[in-house]
Amino acid sequence: MTDQRAGDTFPAIVERREAPGPALVVCEHASNRLPAEWGTLGLAPGLAEAHIAGDPGALGLARGLAARLDAGLVHAPVSRLVYDCNRPPHAPGAMAVKSEMHAIPGNAGLSPAARQRRVEAVYLPFHATLHAEIARRLLIGLPPVIITVHSFTPTWFGAPRAVEFGVIHDADPRLALAVVGEAAGCGLNTQLNQPYSAADDVTHTLKLQALPYGLANVMLEIRNDLIATPEAEAAMADRLAPVLARALARVSGQSHAAD
Amino acid sequence: MTDQRAGDTFPAIVERREAPGPALVVCEHASNRLPAEWGTLGLAPGLAEAHIAGDPGALGLARGLAARLDAGLVHAPVSRLVYDCNRPPHAPGAMAVKSEMHAIPGNAGLSPAARQRRVEAVYLPFHATLHAEIARRLLIGLPPVIITVHSFTPTWFGAPRAVEFGVIHDADPRLALAVVGEAAGCGLNTQLNQPYSAADDVTHTLKLQALPYGLANVMLEIRNDLIATPEAEAAMADRLAPVLARALARVSGQSHAAD
Repeated sequence: MTDQRAGDTFPAIVERREAPGPALVVCEHASNRLPAEWGTLGLAPGLAEAHIAGDPGALGLARGLAARLDAGLVHAPVSRLVYDCNRPPHAPGAMAVKSEMHAIPGNAGLSPAARQRRVEAVYLPFHATLHAEIARRLLIGLPPVIITVHSFTPTWFGAPRAVEFGVIHDADPRLALAVVGEAAGCGLNTQLNQPYSAADDVTHTLKLQALPYGLANVMLEIRNDLIATPEAEAAMADRLAPVLARALARVSGQSHAAD
Repeated sequence: MTDQRAGDTFPAIVERREAPGPALVVCEHASNRLPAEWGTLGLAPGLAEAHIAGDPGALGLARGLAARLDAGLVHAPVSRLVYDCNRPPHAPGAMAVKSEMHAIPGNAGLSPAARQRRVEAVYLPFHATLHAEIARRLLIGLPPVIITVHSFTPTWFGAPRAVEFGVIHDADPRLALAVVGEAAGCGLNTQLNQPYSAADDVTHTLKLQALPYGLANVMLEIRNDLIATPEAEAAMADRLAPVLARALARVSGQSHAAD
């Protein structure tokens, strides 16, 4: 790509800003875009399109859910391999040198200045944009429930994963428990805190953006073979939106932010 | 003042950025400055210099502590009456219509647009600057302990306050308990979670900036009659810096961020 100039920053993209629903959908791994400044990160051709550069299907599903829930949507415009916005700056996974079994050559041996540049270019602008959108909604009396949308691979180091729909919480489990409860009849193998949990340090956005305001929140993980085409993304949104709507209704009136 | 143009924002001021000590001192109520855009907020002459516009002595004490602890310092450049950076946007105290018994005429009946302008001009830039400084320190392997410095009035609605040094915590009490323990011989009436506590919604900065990163943190409140002159500020810094240094030593090695 040739659309970048030195010193550019990459704030989050906000869609459906005026949507009046109670949720704000967030997709930190929406994009596999590698801006010119970071070249190909040394990846073999094709790898950037695979799971390691972004979560396949996650943005399509997030858009489908936001439309069906009349929710706002905030998503990252840059690959997680440049900076993973769901990780704090000091986490090894923030600028990972390895993703599953794939080395990321362009992330090896980064200088302090190179790390700082990525924090300033990607991490801080993403979270500043999300923070501004949450503040705006708090101010107009629409404290948003935060729903982050991710996808995961059907296999991990060769082993198949049975879970299809993972529902992950951090310190506030209200919405996650409601989602698991309402997912009972949805036909998906639904599991709480699988294939990851907060103990794996995957809930940074929830900690940074939802917990400080007492906003109900949850991280959703969908197995990516189930959302591999636009049609499958839409079908999954059709399947999950009613589950989420019922779960949102359960936690409404419980919001700490409205106390 | 005539130093402001329409659309200006007011990021936090960072001092001693390269200081290598383990603490980052924060002073949200450092300033009583009312930028031209907001006029005098209808305050009677002299009131803007009183406690209600800023915390008297807090910035001087914060500077004294930062110097003695070799710590960084981040402080707000605008009066809490325009926007109180230690309050979330939807809190009544964010743009208070009343402070103790004093009405703030310029904050009565604010339009949604006027509220949003203050959030964008003061609140978001302050916290973005503080967030960036914390991120930078995390990245270079200096996860900062967060110490916010405030002052309070000797009387409240006419009643005298006996407490001289208040030590307040949010969900993580490690540093507050250590400070109270080390303050035993310092000669001040020291009390935990007085004259305010987290239940009074006074710990927003701790929630927003320290807890998401597992950083040890505390809010300090000093009675303002004890720091009423530059000499008194320096004497209080001399008195409290050793207390804080010992408390910091107690919590070092316990930092969640370093796990």
